[in-house]
Amino acid sequence: MIRILVTGGTFDKEYNELTGSLFFRHTHLNEMLRLGRCHVDVFIETLMMIDSLDMTAADRARIVDECRVADERQIVITHGTDTMIETAKALAKMFSSAGTKTVVLTGAMIPYAFGSSDGLFNLGSAISFVQTLPPGVYVAMNGRYFHWNAVRKNRETGVFEPLVESPGP
Amino acid sequence: MIRILVTGGTFDKEYNELTGSLFFRHTHLNEMLRLGRCHVDVFIETLMMIDSLDMTAADRARIVDECRVADERQIVITHGTDTMIETAKALAKMFSSAGTKTVVLTGAMIPYAFGSSDGLFNLGSAISFVQTLPPGVYVAMNGRYFHWNAVRKNRETGVFEPLVESPGP
Amino acid sequence: MIRILVTGGTFDKEYNELTGSLFFRHTHLNEMLRLGRCHVDVFIETLMMIDSLDMTAADRARIVDECRVADERQIVITHGTDTMIETAKALAKMFSSAGTKTVVLTGAMIPYAFGSSDGLFNLGSAISFVQTLPPGVYVAMNGRYFHWNAVRKNRETGVFEPLVESPGP
Amino acid sequence: MIRILVTGGTFDKEYNELTGSLFFRHTHLNEMLRLGRCHVDVFIETLMMIDSLDMTAADRARIVDECRVADERQIVITHGTDTMIETAKALAKMFSSAGTKTVVLTGAMIPYAFGSSDGLFNLGSAISFVQTLPPGVYVAMNGRYFHWNAVRKNRETGVFEPLVESPGP
Repeated sequence: MIRILVTGGTFDKEYNELTGSLFFRHTHLNEMLRLGRCHVDVFIETLMMIDSLDMTAADRARIVDECRVADERQIVITHGTDTMIETAKALAKMFSSAGTKTVVLTGAMIPYAFGSSDGLFNLGSAISFVQTLPPGVYVAMNGRYFHWNAVRKNRETGVFEPLVESPGP
Repeated sequence: MIRILVTGGTFDKEYNELTGSLFFRHTHLNEMLRLGRCHVDVFIETLMMIDSLDMTAADRARIVDECRVADERQIVITHGTDTMIETAKALAKMFSSAGTKTVVLTGAMIPYAFGSSDGLFNLGSAISFVQTLPPGVYVAMNGRYFHWNAVRKNRETGVFEPLVESPGP
Repeated sequence: MIRILVTGGTFDKEYNELTGSLFFRHTHLNEMLRLGRCHVDVFIETLMMIDSLDMTAADRARIVDECRVADERQIVITHGTDTMIETAKALAKMFSSAGTKTVVLTGAMIPYAFGSSDGLFNLGSAISFVQTLPPGVYVAMNGRYFHWNAVRKNRETGVFEPLVESPGP
Repeated sequence: MIRILVTGGTFDKEYNELTGSLFFRHTHLNEMLRLGRCHVDVFIETLMMIDSLDMTAADRARIVDECRVADERQIVITHGTDTMIETAKALAKMFSSAGTKTVVLTGAMIPYAFGSSDGLFNLGSAISFVQTLPPGVYVAMNGRYFHWNAVRKNRETGVFEPLVESPGP
């Protein structure tokens, strides 16, 4: 059984045709899993529906708590890409000692509702990585997985990249 | 580096608007990886573009050969779902001794060109499993992976299921 | 009030993922009108759900009858493109004497369910032509309208073209 | 020959995946006409690419001018829905004396690029109305056409409605 924690992010943004702006309504995760004909047992829980730029320390604490108390050993978190790595760090800090759960964060660059989204690809990827990676906290984007402390989001390209340590003196 | 071998299947079927029938033209893999913003290094090779019901022993021998001679240790094969397991068996038979490559077969129930396809989900899944599973031959469908000898396609539901051995007497 | 008579055709074809073949289930007209945010009063009636190559003289007689008894003076017929002109002729023959109704036949080259269909464009076109053209029988395809006796379908391009009279001796 | 004047509006908005905001790049009209398999002769001219809330008197003067000097007698204008009626009024005021051209304004509630747009339906509708309505200035939305001075946009529903004159004393 995989627990999927929904926090919002681009994944779940929609277009409000009356105001011409983007907003959150409900998660598209169920629809996406149905489209993907996913037959993994999952339990979907919506924790919040927010832009990850608006995520507070309290929000992160709640995500960490939910992961801690979850019965499942495999957890996928859908999350805005802007601060996904920050949440991964919060999870790793408070959570690593447990050492028995695999947590994979994923997101999307284009809202699923807009038709040509990377979201379905990323969801397939995250659900697969979470079943096969050893316990730890990971980011799954662009078809790759990264350890929470070995990744950065390139703001100019929108691509998640390996964090290369600068060589010492 | 992942090698992707394209053999056709529902994945790549298109609608011929003049005849009203389905046909193959070229693979959609490049387009799908672009849509998924995949940044894994892949090498895509189209071996054939056929319905898997039309796949011959010679076709399977060619797929096995291509896997054997490939330099990459991670290989994804896109394949029609009807005989995917048969090809997985052919691969396992001739290929298991090598023991150093991870081969993941995947497919789709709905053509990618039809808009509401499971293909993008399955591709994200296969590309992720191939990076994390130990050497062997696998089928990746419905968000799950199966060992080549532990899976069957349920013809009535279209779902890939674990093959449960009937208990002996 | 516009009456929409549904007869099937490519418009309403769907993909059967278990058999890999195309079939009819129910009409997509309601969904299409909702997507188009259409606020014209319409009454949708499904007469049949068939490929127009399978349409019999009895089927055509039924379509003609339905048009004759309809209370509405504006009628749109969704129809397979292969024999659309034949049905237009049947309508014109038995129906022209009435002279008080505008009948517009339309169709699609790509099923609406396949995402990249011309159907929505054609439906918007047909619903508009039927409100503004004088009584008569017309075909609306490719953004144009044609009198029933002045059009042919070019089988090689799939395009509806004006029928050019060959010059006399 | 129909002239299509592009001014922007929701029709042509796109999602910027790096900033998460909506923006204009180039018009989708060519792509939409291709998808609709439109075979009407059209000449597409992009006048501006703006949100209609940002449209100035000078912008409207330019649209009016372009309509005046155009050789074509049938003109479609794609336009944001918020001030479409204002532009229709400007056109009617300066342009009605000419009396020989049919001008149809249309727009969309959902960007075409978002997959589930009403734009294709509206475009099919506008291109059809412009071929059949007598000279004048019209708005084509929701499958209907309205004279420039007999329509209002209901801000709460997003629907264009007939303007009902309040009865005199």
